[in-house]
Amino acid sequence: MTEVRPPRGIWCATLTPQDARGAIDTRRLAAHVKRLFAAGVDGIALFGTTGEGQSFALRERRDGLDALIAAGIDPRRVLAGTGCAALPETIELTRHAVACGCAGALVLPPFFFKAVSDEGVYASYARIVEGVGDDRLRLYLYHIPQVTAVPISAGVIERLAAAFPAVVAGIKDSSCDLDHEQALLRRFPRLDIFVGFEPHLPAAVAAGGAGTICGIANLYPRALRRLFDAANEAARRAELDRIGRLVALLDGYSLFPAFKAIQASITGDEGWLAVREPLVALDAGATQSLLAGLAATGLDPARDSASAD
Amino acid sequence: MTEVRPPRGIWCATLTPQDARGAIDTRRLAAHVKRLFAAGVDGIALFGTTGEGQSFALRERRDGLDALIAAGIDPRRVLAGTGCAALPETIELTRHAVACGCAGALVLPPFFFKAVSDEGVYASYARIVEGVGDDRLRLYLYHIPQVTAVPISAGVIERLAAAFPAVVAGIKDSSCDLDHEQALLRRFPRLDIFVGFEPHLPAAVAAGGAGTICGIANLYPRALRRLFDAANEAARRAELDRIGRLVALLDGYSLFPAFKAIQASITGDEGWLAVREPLVALDAGATQSLLAGLAATGLDPARDSASAD
Repeated sequence: MTEVRPPRGIWCATLTPQDARGAIDTRRLAAHVKRLFAAGVDGIALFGTTGEGQSFALRERRDGLDALIAAGIDPRRVLAGTGCAALPETIELTRHAVACGCAGALVLPPFFFKAVSDEGVYASYARIVEGVGDDRLRLYLYHIPQVTAVPISAGVIERLAAAFPAVVAGIKDSSCDLDHEQALLRRFPRLDIFVGFEPHLPAAVAAGGAGTICGIANLYPRALRRLFDAANEAARRAELDRIGRLVALLDGYSLFPAFKAIQASITGDEGWLAVREPLVALDAGATQSLLAGLAATGLDPARDSASAD
Repeated sequence: MTEVRPPRGIWCATLTPQDARGAIDTRRLAAHVKRLFAAGVDGIALFGTTGEGQSFALRERRDGLDALIAAGIDPRRVLAGTGCAALPETIELTRHAVACGCAGALVLPPFFFKAVSDEGVYASYARIVEGVGDDRLRLYLYHIPQVTAVPISAGVIERLAAAFPAVVAGIKDSSCDLDHEQALLRRFPRLDIFVGFEPHLPAAVAAGGAGTICGIANLYPRALRRLFDAANEAARRAELDRIGRLVALLDGYSLFPAFKAIQASITGDEGWLAVREPLVALDAGATQSLLAGLAATGLDPARDSASAD
């Protein structure tokens, strides 16, 4: 049983499986999460970017979380992605996550308008905290500027942490920028900072980071566990090399469809291939070349995945 | 009474007023639309970018349209902005707009993911058309790549127009790029193409365009009417000069808060100043300098606005 303590370690930004009608397949999702936990993953981030969160309606996201908990997933091991373009919907989903007892809410800034001022980003999060109005909220700021084009500046984080010290718990830094991650770690030692880019995990943890919230944990949970737990530099280096090769290989593909193609291969379940528009599943040729690339570089996921037990 | 015919002419991308609690003030909105119609505006686009559409929840957008129609606004003069990040919500809002009898639905592509493929944009719109499943739908593709970072390519438009010829009715080209607008006008003579950038209206109409869907029509509806109806080049040039000066002046301000500041000044109603986060209202100094700039350049909106009658 998980103790009640802040998230740390390996948190998987879970893929969202769909059924034949394109709806969220909560049965398949719950089974996946259970396999991840059995493989050593500490928790999950539900409906993040990897999980195509913004492609699912508010109702689907709310019901999906409910179904996962009903299937036996401990909400204290779930960070719920609750950010929406419209703040009333972010507030509604975040309230729901708090009511469910989730470990926290992982919240994007409003992401439609571009060139948003720091004042606007601050005011948005302040509105969310006040709108949720619940001391139990643990808010994780979700910084992923290459997708949102709305960065969360250090100045905004500082103001939020000062205004809502009991609520603002951490940051998911998906900038994939080591300098940015290190600057946040230095400036906000009190916040739990997770990196999204797997190869930066050891450096982030060495600098006081809480761990990673990442997509590769769907496919190679044991490798990430070993990377986090590595007892010495040689062991860490070996895992980093493997993960670095994987990241380089994935660079040639549409990332989340590629994740789902690998997941389908690992599980032997082609249902995992489905993505929701605007994403497009890899075609047969790309899938074949991706899987061949994994095999050729010693990255056969079947030997490492959550399904291997 | 409006005849049933495709939208053309001056369509105002309406600002969305808020009440003291931050909710959509539908009474103020309906009164604004009636003044616009009295000033010669042909129709409105509700909950577009100028109207902060993405900042309002699905429920607010649906109820806002209902309230406007209940207040006596003819739905045949309304293009409803119904695009959302998640397709099930786009489909739900678009169905509602069709059921309301709106002139059409103005639909953004899903805008969270970036570097979306043409295939993904095509598949998204195809899913929307099939999901709405109603022959009465008139779909206007909303191209505003500087905000969405998801362009709608000519190739995608061609495939959609071929696949759904009775449904795909037009394009709102808010690229503000004359070459792009002209290329669309040449390539898609059957579609009704509206430009978002007011100074391009005469050139677009001369090349077969349907008109404009634009924000300045909130403030200077009569100027846009005169520009559209100008009987000769000298009259057209005079209006273009005025509008060009206005566009240049606005360039120094956050655009939609600036629009609302001018609207507040025109109507003497400070309630118009409110914007929803992540936008931030102009401060007093910026408002003062904006209004002084308008007066100094002969652009006093009170003499031209929908309130002048």
